[in-house]
Amino acid sequence: MKARVYISLKNGVLDPQGKAISHSLQGLGFKNVLDVRQGKTIDLDLADMDRDAAEAEVERMCQQLLANTVIENYSIEMLD
Amino acid sequence: MKARVYISLKNGVLDPQGKAISHSLQGLGFKNVLDVRQGKTIDLDLADMDRDAAEAEVERMCQQLLANTVIENYSIEMLD
Repeated sequence: MKARVYISLKNGVLDPQGKAISHSLQGLGFKNVLDVRQGKTIDLDLADMDRDAAEAEVERMCQQLLANTVIENYSIEMLD
Repeated sequence: MKARVYISLKNGVLDPQGKAISHSLQGLGFKNVLDVRQGKTIDLDLADMDRDAAEAEVERMCQQLLANTVIENYSIEMLD
């Protein structure tokens, strides 16, 4: 069973990497770039199990390790 | 106009971050984790322009800066 976790900084949290990318893009001549925010995807390959149980387990993984819930949002997509 | 770029390591490319996450999850007792791969999302906020022109521009951004096309795959999702 596969799942994908999307992790992104909460609105209002400074994103230095996004700023650096935006600055580099401007330097390369991409003048239409207004803002850039970088996030993470974590693709999990899990042993075969009940889909709801798997989603609950991924939720716990996010709470315990994958996301810093103080400054990050996360969402879970079960892929199969 | 908003676009999201998904960047992930090509198959066969070693993912040390993914391995570290997998190891940590096992250590926390998540025994159903078989493999973990980490990727990036880059959310771009672009000036209003023609959708196809915007997508072509994001394609150029990926080729020139956002993705290391030797070891990474990328895909573009135009969000509005």
